[in-house]
Amino acid sequence: MLYRVEVRYKKGVLDPEGNAALDALRSLGFKADAVATAKVYLIETPSSQKDVEEMCRKLLTNPIIHDYSVSKA
Amino acid sequence: MLYRVEVRYKKGVLDPEGNAALDALRSLGFKADAVATAKVYLIETPSSQKDVEEMCRKLLTNPIIHDYSVSKA
Repeated sequence: MLYRVEVRYKKGVLDPEGNAALDALRSLGFKADAVATAKVYLIETPSSQKDVEEMCRKLLTNPIIHDYSVSKA
Repeated sequence: MLYRVEVRYKKGVLDPEGNAALDALRSLGFKADAVATAKVYLIETPSSQKDVEEMCRKLLTNPIIHDYSVSKA
């Protein structure tokens, strides 16, 4: 089964890569008001969605700064 | 308008972060066959989707190693 994990910054947490992309887009002349980034992990595994959520808690995310969602891809 | 840009590695291109995640998941005792990563940019802009595709070509992606998709979020 292929699962899709999306990891985002929590609201209020700085997103340095998003801010850098925003600055760079503006410096190239593009109009942009905000850029936020997220990371996607596509995980091929025989495990259950519950196990994938445990992978998120134990390895893939930092609960202090991240929110995440798991879905079947 | 909020656009969602998803940047993936092309087939055949090494995904070091995905491979590192796969190794780490296995070392923690999880069963996983493959992990691929992708990057998401959520861009708030008054520009058109065509302009966002130009942002991808000029800044956000490397055409040698990346595929990307743009959609309205």
